[in-house]
Amino acid sequence: MNGADDLIETLLANEVDACFANPGTSEMQFVAALDGQPKMRPVLCLFEGVATGAADGFGRMADRPACTLLHLGPGYGNGLANLHNARRAYTPLVNVVGDHATYHRQYDAPLNSDIPTIVGPNSLWVKSADSADDVAPLAAEAVAASFGPPGGPVSLILPADSAWTETNVGAVKAQKPSRPAPSSDAVEAAARAVRGAKKPVVLIGGQACRAEGMVQAARLAAHGVRVLADTFVARQPRGAGHFQPGRMQYFGEAALADLAGTDLMLLAGTTQPVAFFAYPDRPSLLVPEGCDLMTLAARSEDAIEGLRALADALGAPKDGPVQPLKRPEAPPTGPMTPQAAGASIARHLPEGAIICDDSVTSGGGVASQTNTAAPHEVLALTGGAIGQAIPLSIGAAVACPDRKVLSLNGDGAAMYTVQGLWTIARENLDVTVVVFANHAYRILNIELGRTGAGEAGPSAAKLLDLGDPRIDWVAMAKSMGLPAVRCETAESFETAFAGAMRQKGPMFIEAAIG
Amino acid sequence: MNGADDLIETLLANEVDACFANPGTSEMQFVAALDGQPKMRPVLCLFEGVATGAADGFGRMADRPACTLLHLGPGYGNGLANLHNARRAYTPLVNVVGDHATYHRQYDAPLNSDIPTIVGPNSLWVKSADSADDVAPLAAEAVAASFGPPGGPVSLILPADSAWTETNVGAVKAQKPSRPAPSSDAVEAAARAVRGAKKPVVLIGGQACRAEGMVQAARLAAHGVRVLADTFVARQPRGAGHFQPGRMQYFGEAALADLAGTDLMLLAGTTQPVAFFAYPDRPSLLVPEGCDLMTLAARSEDAIEGLRALADALGAPKDGPVQPLKRPEAPPTGPMTPQAAGASIARHLPEGAIICDDSVTSGGGVASQTNTAAPHEVLALTGGAIGQAIPLSIGAAVACPDRKVLSLNGDGAAMYTVQGLWTIARENLDVTVVVFANHAYRILNIELGRTGAGEAGPSAAKLLDLGDPRIDWVAMAKSMGLPAVRCETAESFETAFAGAMRQKGPMFIEAAIG
Repeated sequence: MNGADDLIETLLANEVDACFANPGTSEMQFVAALDGQPKMRPVLCLFEGVATGAADGFGRMADRPACTLLHLGPGYGNGLANLHNARRAYTPLVNVVGDHATYHRQYDAPLNSDIPTIVGPNSLWVKSADSADDVAPLAAEAVAASFGPPGGPVSLILPADSAWTETNVGAVKAQKPSRPAPSSDAVEAAARAVRGAKKPVVLIGGQACRAEGMVQAARLAAHGVRVLADTFVARQPRGAGHFQPGRMQYFGEAALADLAGTDLMLLAGTTQPVAFFAYPDRPSLLVPEGCDLMTLAARSEDAIEGLRALADALGAPKDGPVQPLKRPEAPPTGPMTPQAAGASIARHLPEGAIICDDSVTSGGGVASQTNTAAPHEVLALTGGAIGQAIPLSIGAAVACPDRKVLSLNGDGAAMYTVQGLWTIARENLDVTVVVFANHAYRILNIELGRTGAGEAGPSAAKLLDLGDPRIDWVAMAKSMGLPAVRCETAESFETAFAGAMRQKGPMFIEAAIG
Repeated sequence: MNGADDLIETLLANEVDACFANPGTSEMQFVAALDGQPKMRPVLCLFEGVATGAADGFGRMADRPACTLLHLGPGYGNGLANLHNARRAYTPLVNVVGDHATYHRQYDAPLNSDIPTIVGPNSLWVKSADSADDVAPLAAEAVAASFGPPGGPVSLILPADSAWTETNVGAVKAQKPSRPAPSSDAVEAAARAVRGAKKPVVLIGGQACRAEGMVQAARLAAHGVRVLADTFVARQPRGAGHFQPGRMQYFGEAALADLAGTDLMLLAGTTQPVAFFAYPDRPSLLVPEGCDLMTLAARSEDAIEGLRALADALGAPKDGPVQPLKRPEAPPTGPMTPQAAGASIARHLPEGAIICDDSVTSGGGVASQTNTAAPHEVLALTGGAIGQAIPLSIGAAVACPDRKVLSLNGDGAAMYTVQGLWTIARENLDVTVVVFANHAYRILNIELGRTGAGEAGPSAAKLLDLGDPRIDWVAMAKSMGLPAVRCETAESFETAFAGAMRQKGPMFIEAAIG
């Protein structure tokens, strides 16, 4: 047994059984050790941003970490953006970052890099296992730390000599931390505040948006309290049988208009709402003037228990409103639009589907129509770093092999981690990838106006347009082994999407909306 | 005028006239300001790793920085690996990293990130322009800092409000630092040491490997001093009319065998040679026991002047040996191999071509045959972070529009930044991209054995193999607008490559070697 064996044994002993990897030389011992542990599923990703986003998707769905295997500082760097998203999703996730042998670091070889500094901002916990005997205990510590609460990515640095040196420590079990319920004082204060408010709002996020939290939030809604969810939620149920909260508006001025008159904002599993970006002369903090802000349950607390206790304290009904099952009866017709796609998705999405959403400006048409579709869950872009929905779908499909996964992408976003299509094909995952191809960074055309920068001239337009040349998405997907089809009409999308939902296995659909 | 205008004016005033960009909302003012400054060439890259690698290629060829435009911490993260390579290449390069408005940072919005920490390890200089009046002076400081010596990437953080706020500072000129020559004491000591040594070696790297440095190194060779170049050099001439130094071997034991008996190693423009990776029971430091190590010129010094002074002090001839022009006469025949590709490349490479090399295990066949090809320059993978040669070729082609650029890639490496193919097509760059498709991380099969990890079992093999499914490289390249051809024989490669060299504009060739 060497350090690499100990690492994999410890990971498996703590139910970390999926490894999204793009290894290099310094990780070869770990790779070799995988052969001794067939319970660990290795998933090769051709770019580290795919591996980290997949681990995020896995963690969101499995509620336990997957591990990544990354090659020194540059390998981690390639995965950094999706780890930023994972940090904002509070997803448990264990990065194993290979490093040079401890004695080799001093020579500053070409790949030498300041790994602790690079990984710091997106890691809840960072340690380097500088001896083989350290590997198992630190791996257990890493798994425990990844649970938070709230959870997040952690980074275990694995020098090559710690991996190849003999050791007989063996697997170490981690102690999973618990998530404390809010104090009864906090619940009582919240109940008093709600009773005294004219127009209270409960803003839910994170853990509070899981299905069990929604049941409690619905009770508050039934009691007359307005419930809003964060704009971007890591994992949220949607569709028939689920409570549908309102949503914090993306643009600040719209959010404040929506909140006009609100005199109490109670936070459960989230923090005060703020604008995604600042703009000249527009608000950053999305709490109306004079509105009291109060925390029922911090992110680190059990917000579901908090909501339940508050609903009980208020004497809310046992059950709240849920969405009916109401799918568009007629298949959509006419031009290919996000709305048409949304109608087909709402019609054919199977129960239990998982939607990974990075569809930017095309998402609205889907969200508005799937509110009453078959019950499903949605994983949103929590950190704003586009290029997430292909990787997320890989992880979700590995975590939940019996559920259909739908990956919704803007074309600009899809290009960021397009290499993930290959992993979907290789692993034969039950994922349907939709790319909304408008051949532009459409969101930036909108944002350009909002920053007061005016209309795009020729240089600016060149940085917002993806249409010259037009990416042939079907050829792109096929080049990586996916069956693929381009849909230029609502009718063809309806046919393609219905077919994809009926079959099991990978499918790629270009929704040609531009 | 606002801060964004000031930034672009200052960059242009300091000859920074190419911007490799992937902007987001926080960079919209900069994007808008480009319209007022048509001298700044904006080049859209569909992934930040393409933008940073392109800026590296530009800087290596132009000897002045290009700028990148990156979107907060995640955008920088996506470009981190190629900035690692640029740091190891000592390439002047100015990153403009957009950030939230200064007053918005406190709210920790979803894209908020610890930018100074993330950029630190790969930046010679980091400052945030926290007011509009700071932008121009800090931009000038950034440009100056990027020159080092030796040069490297710097990072100017640009908060959105600094960009949109009015200012009347105007353009600020930077003071370009000079590179001091080594002291005469150092030169004399080196000359004495060479005279006293039985088997001296001069190891050259960095600036010493530029064409002018090679002329001086050749004089030393003519005087009987062995000259070796670093294994991976940022920019080095090759072919007819150039001196061809030996090369430090990649594997440590081969390097030490090659250096057996060497009793003096003199460093010019580089530091002591070390193994790329550590392996059990193999050396890290590649200096034979008992060999004196002495620095003639540090990286920050003018190594070309150092070599010239040493050659003069030793009374070396005015001219040293150069390579003859000797191209393979017969076109290669038979199976598609790296050697066959190398023969065609040696036959048809035009004078002044720029080779961007990330071809990993396929590179040897090219290097060995282009030693006597038409004179050209080679940009190598300096930092070991694969995925560099497509981006590098973009920057080299933008910097040198009258020179043919050849991008040589392993298939594993090419997938990392495959999005760069689109930019080559969009900008109609005179780049021929060759991908050596062996459908494996071949180097890792070699490295797995060397780490003592043994043969790959099924799990390990799954992480080293790219062949299931096989990537259709021609479809991939065509999907992004490049003309493309697959070559399965030496004959077809010969035809395709000769054709690509005769024409101007983009071309993609899959060398199907696996």
